[in-house]
Amino acid sequence: MSDAIDIEVVRYTADAVVTERDLVVAEAPVEFRLGGVPIAVLMRTPGHDEELGVGFALTEGIVLGPQEVDAVVLRSGDTNGDRYDIELADGVQVDPEQFRRNLYTTSSCGVCGKASIDAVRVAAPPLPEGPIVEPSFLMGLLAATERGQSVFHQTGGLHAAALFDGSGELLALREDIGRHNAVDKVIGAVAPGRWPLGEAVLLVTGRVSFEMVQKAAVAGIPLICGVSAASSLAAELGDELGATVVGFLRPGGFNVYAGKARIA
Amino acid sequence: MSDAIDIEVVRYTADAVVTERDLVVAEAPVEFRLGGVPIAVLMRTPGHDEELGVGFALTEGIVLGPQEVDAVVLRSGDTNGDRYDIELADGVQVDPEQFRRNLYTTSSCGVCGKASIDAVRVAAPPLPEGPIVEPSFLMGLLAATERGQSVFHQTGGLHAAALFDGSGELLALREDIGRHNAVDKVIGAVAPGRWPLGEAVLLVTGRVSFEMVQKAAVAGIPLICGVSAASSLAAELGDELGATVVGFLRPGGFNVYAGKARIA
Repeated sequence: MSDAIDIEVVRYTADAVVTERDLVVAEAPVEFRLGGVPIAVLMRTPGHDEELGVGFALTEGIVLGPQEVDAVVLRSGDTNGDRYDIELADGVQVDPEQFRRNLYTTSSCGVCGKASIDAVRVAAPPLPEGPIVEPSFLMGLLAATERGQSVFHQTGGLHAAALFDGSGELLALREDIGRHNAVDKVIGAVAPGRWPLGEAVLLVTGRVSFEMVQKAAVAGIPLICGVSAASSLAAELGDELGATVVGFLRPGGFNVYAGKARIA
Repeated sequence: MSDAIDIEVVRYTADAVVTERDLVVAEAPVEFRLGGVPIAVLMRTPGHDEELGVGFALTEGIVLGPQEVDAVVLRSGDTNGDRYDIELADGVQVDPEQFRRNLYTTSSCGVCGKASIDAVRVAAPPLPEGPIVEPSFLMGLLAATERGQSVFHQTGGLHAAALFDGSGELLALREDIGRHNAVDKVIGAVAPGRWPLGEAVLLVTGRVSFEMVQKAAVAGIPLICGVSAASSLAAELGDELGATVVGFLRPGGFNVYAGKARIA
């Protein structure tokens, strides 16, 4: 299944109605299982599913590193949806039931903002002090991200997440209809060859909410930038963890909501 | 807790660095319980929480109408998070455990796109044939929506959902950091006084994905418009249910992905 699908669209403008073929972003469910137990069903844009499985397992704290995942194996699938088993490495044991409770408390959090932040603090590794970057460095990442958004240019319907190293080299870029999925995919793509992620910068094309900072922090990423707004709880979580949270990243400037020590 | 929070921000531009106060969109968790059992923890923008509880219960198929909810009662709360009990009307019985499985199959769906669509078809009422609207009618809804986005104008960090009747009158508009929450809030706001919702139009400021069409359809809304792209599965679900799905709604035109019979 492709990440863009050709369908018939009726286009209305002020003076015309045209029926034509157009590309829309593909959306379909995927299920991940652990030891035979379904742990997540995600609505995602098909493609890079193994990376999504690895990234999801990492950012939700199910495994502590990519070496704990042996393989993400397709078990069944048709053109609309797929099932994958996340197979753990020898000797790694995760109780899926315990993990379900975990997910409830960490991902969906413990009801008050402070409990949510405390839960992430337990799951996240200490963040590196760097990278220390110039403002122009961050603004320069926008062009590289835009160049990589191939499906967005076709359909206008996707979020992107791009991961850069401290020198500004693009490590990977992934697109998905779900913003969290794009983050999980890009982390799942890079982690097996570079763990811990260290002095990396995550750029997302949407808003920076609590869960985006949570996923980045649990994967050990110290600097997260969004081209749109940041939320109150995202800023608070960045403060507590010592992560840098940047919002409204545009060619002409940006706002820093937490962790300004990493901006030179 | 307000829906916009004043925090310190460091603003970088090409030739200046300024530390100033700025408003960011508030984000905090809320938990809803049914008969003492937690059924959902949502990251939302505080405010209109009772409407969120009613709307969530309706669009997730937990109750069949607003009359089945007696009250949504605050049980505890601090400045960061809250717990609410959804209290059902006399004689209404919902098994929270069964509902949990339900959620898994309907909201998160049954792994293949077709199963997802079938699950929604069971939960959604038959949709009304109308409203039949002129293209200019839909484009005219944009201005009313923009006027209502007060928190967006303050923070740039919110999604909005607006519900109109078939004559274009704004029934309600709600904003939230979560797109699904904005839809649940606006449905929860209108449903108690107007059920079934009938010939209503839902306008959302973001993308139209599967879950947006699902929530609208389960609440009986026949026409859903987004200012951004629609996904493949959203178009497919609209086709199957006979719902009208409009994307890229702008002052100069729009695209119809399903249900073009409602466009005059």
